[in-house]
Amino acid sequence: MYYDNLTMLADYYELTMMQGYLLTQRHKRLAVFDLFFRSNPFDNGYSVAAGLAQAIEYVKGLHFSEDDVSYLRSMGVFKEKFLEYLKHFEFTGDIYAIPEGTVVFPHEPLIRVSAPVIEAQLLESALLNIVNHQSLLATKAVRVVNAAGGDRVLEFGLRRAQGPDAAIYGARAAMIGGCAATSNVEAGRLFAVPISGTHAHSWVMSFDEELTAFREYAKLYPAACILLVDTYNTLKSGVPNAIKVFRELKDAGVNLGTYGVRLDSGDLAYLSKKVREMLDEAGFYDAIISASGDLDEYLIANLKAEGAKITYWGVGTKLITSNDCPAFGGIYKLAAEISQDGAVHPKIKISENPAKITNPGIKTVFRLYDKSSGKVKADLISLYDEIIDETKDLTIFDPVSTWKKMTLKANEFKVKDLLVPIFIKGKCVYESPEVMEIAAFCRRDQETLWDENRRLLHPNRLPVDLSEKLYMLKKRMLEECAE
Amino acid sequence: MYYDNLTMLADYYELTMMQGYLLTQRHKRLAVFDLFFRSNPFDNGYSVAAGLAQAIEYVKGLHFSEDDVSYLRSMGVFKEKFLEYLKHFEFTGDIYAIPEGTVVFPHEPLIRVSAPVIEAQLLESALLNIVNHQSLLATKAVRVVNAAGGDRVLEFGLRRAQGPDAAIYGARAAMIGGCAATSNVEAGRLFAVPISGTHAHSWVMSFDEELTAFREYAKLYPAACILLVDTYNTLKSGVPNAIKVFRELKDAGVNLGTYGVRLDSGDLAYLSKKVREMLDEAGFYDAIISASGDLDEYLIANLKAEGAKITYWGVGTKLITSNDCPAFGGIYKLAAEISQDGAVHPKIKISENPAKITNPGIKTVFRLYDKSSGKVKADLISLYDEIIDETKDLTIFDPVSTWKKMTLKANEFKVKDLLVPIFIKGKCVYESPEVMEIAAFCRRDQETLWDENRRLLHPNRLPVDLSEKLYMLKKRMLEECAE
Repeated sequence: MYYDNLTMLADYYELTMMQGYLLTQRHKRLAVFDLFFRSNPFDNGYSVAAGLAQAIEYVKGLHFSEDDVSYLRSMGVFKEKFLEYLKHFEFTGDIYAIPEGTVVFPHEPLIRVSAPVIEAQLLESALLNIVNHQSLLATKAVRVVNAAGGDRVLEFGLRRAQGPDAAIYGARAAMIGGCAATSNVEAGRLFAVPISGTHAHSWVMSFDEELTAFREYAKLYPAACILLVDTYNTLKSGVPNAIKVFRELKDAGVNLGTYGVRLDSGDLAYLSKKVREMLDEAGFYDAIISASGDLDEYLIANLKAEGAKITYWGVGTKLITSNDCPAFGGIYKLAAEISQDGAVHPKIKISENPAKITNPGIKTVFRLYDKSSGKVKADLISLYDEIIDETKDLTIFDPVSTWKKMTLKANEFKVKDLLVPIFIKGKCVYESPEVMEIAAFCRRDQETLWDENRRLLHPNRLPVDLSEKLYMLKKRMLEECAE
Repeated sequence: MYYDNLTMLADYYELTMMQGYLLTQRHKRLAVFDLFFRSNPFDNGYSVAAGLAQAIEYVKGLHFSEDDVSYLRSMGVFKEKFLEYLKHFEFTGDIYAIPEGTVVFPHEPLIRVSAPVIEAQLLESALLNIVNHQSLLATKAVRVVNAAGGDRVLEFGLRRAQGPDAAIYGARAAMIGGCAATSNVEAGRLFAVPISGTHAHSWVMSFDEELTAFREYAKLYPAACILLVDTYNTLKSGVPNAIKVFRELKDAGVNLGTYGVRLDSGDLAYLSKKVREMLDEAGFYDAIISASGDLDEYLIANLKAEGAKITYWGVGTKLITSNDCPAFGGIYKLAAEISQDGAVHPKIKISENPAKITNPGIKTVFRLYDKSSGKVKADLISLYDEIIDETKDLTIFDPVSTWKKMTLKANEFKVKDLLVPIFIKGKCVYESPEVMEIAAFCRRDQETLWDENRRLLHPNRLPVDLSEKLYMLKKRMLEECAE
């Protein structure tokens, strides 16, 4: 709204640290940071990476304007040497990332930044903000869409989103996660995704009679005529009036497109069954019943199990705010430093909580597929320069319960390196696909999972192991720290 | 990020309805919409209105660009007559609103829009988005700040916010709600609010030794030197090293400003007590203990009750996402139409759920204060042209349990009309105060409440009644509907 680039979208400590690196003359050291998360939101079996396109725009747009520098100067904390540096700031590093729409798991680096530490440090807050938000929403959408089975899920959350961006980029991520359309016109325009919607109660209330309101609406939009039937009384007034209008259109020879009714209150299971009967009795077998009102994956699954006759699900607040888990826990941690001679110095963050100990070194993620079924057998977080030979047996093991082993037979598995180059020496080398392409990819990528990984509740966990080399490096570093 | 105005931040049905109003030649009818909410989030005793400044910017910026119109044309749904109308669209109506930072209650119109229906309809989605988000965050912040008593609460949520706007405007609202500072530099710049922060684990990890990292940091920032002590081991390494550095500074005659340590993991109650002892033993009685890590109002209240020695609270994820209730349920409902002769036709939205029945007519909110204590006795939602005579006894009654009555004695109470003019005939007549002024007003406004209204859990409810005139109007309309 007020900002044209996001350079200043940073936690203040990024700037104090950047000045610290500069004034201690350590700013040119190459640092490698991983952006990763520690657990799937909603206890889902996986997450969906999203937000890379906006992360790229952010990095491309990085520069400190005169205004920015003046503001920072006014704080009385930053030296002229540092402010001068900021005026010429540009990102010169490398970024690798897992493409949007990919199924991802805890501890896997979604983004790996290798750059002079002063640059890599600045990126932390904004990259996390963007990727956390969209990965959260894409993952939530996947759950809602899966709960709806083959039905259409429509993203209706604009009015309850946490600000304009939350609505716009939330809608983008929801489309990546499989929503069929959004009500958000700006998201439709920006991302070339389908938009959808009909009318509100205010349309009906602006007429003296509901029937007139429906009739006028149908006259205007015969090709997409979903009438909201709960302004006064769904079964006694709304549906009979809607049927009357559908019949008039039919009698007049109008070619009805997508038509039907929308329920926005009351008991959706009971009402949808009654409404289905009424529509069928009137011969409108192909009329759609769309429903909205406090829906989420749990309620949709429940309503479907109860036999609700709903095929279009308008999901608002609980999707766009990711109601039951409104944050994705992505973090950005130093994994290595590279000295001038090119030597890699792995870094580790210790914690009393083993789950919070980071994986050291420059890493990538290998996804191991069963060749015949195309399904994922496991992911292997490895050092970036490891090579996996598909023609040899591969034994992998759980990094905590190391006796849990799995052997992939030679020539029966396939390997894919999930991280692809995005920026090389500051230049973007990646073109983001269109959102609907990403959505299609996301659907296909989920099909490489097993049904038991995709279950709504208590899904089975795919193994995400460490390569032996990485495991040994981590072990050694932990033992050194303990000394 | 990608948009320079928010005109297209609308649900698609606003546009189909707008075209409907135009093509049925009803678009010039004056409509009155209320923006209000039905219940306080978090079961709080009140909410805080916020977001008006951005709502004003939105309305001021309203216009459809050539691009917008081309996009809409490409959908094949909108007639040229309507697209032509959009090209010349401007807001010509009146808007009244309750100023930001004001304590508000369910069913009170926070914003009242009176405009040709085609204009008033467009505003729905964006106004709700903006006001819902910021009112939610301001209300959440108030709770966190109240739980912290007199301690400083710092907003640290940028990286977990639902997109850039959620971080920036969320920080704005958090400041309105009483946070002492935010880590978000862009919010600091845009809203002239204090920013705060020190360093991350990566600063410590970028040095071979924690002590060197602290020493260098302290040299750079002696005036605001809060050292993060949990990178390796808080009690065995972090705090002893911090004390060593504070002593070196003191010995060197450096004038320490705000200095101390930050805890970001482990048991904050236990650690803070131990750390306090260590700092005190070393003579650093004025060293601050700041804490962060999954904090919210409940945990802060709990830690304080346990005697934790923390005085600076860095609150991230759970504040910025309003974790336990991530949406504010604001809605925008038609309340009246005004015909050309100026006659007001009140409108009502019926529901089987009495709490969902709207209040008809053009309304305002009178706040009734006890003259001697300055405390609020009750709010009275009234028709906008009612006059309350402070020199006469006033009896008010609960709109549901009508036998619950209260009489305010003549000359012992004061009345304030909460809604103030914002736009008159499309022209903005209101200047938003600075954010820190709004924050100061919000603090004072909360002091007009009673302690029992401000309690974190199960607060007492202030009476929010309907004026007798409004009550009778509503009753009559409901009875007519039931016929």
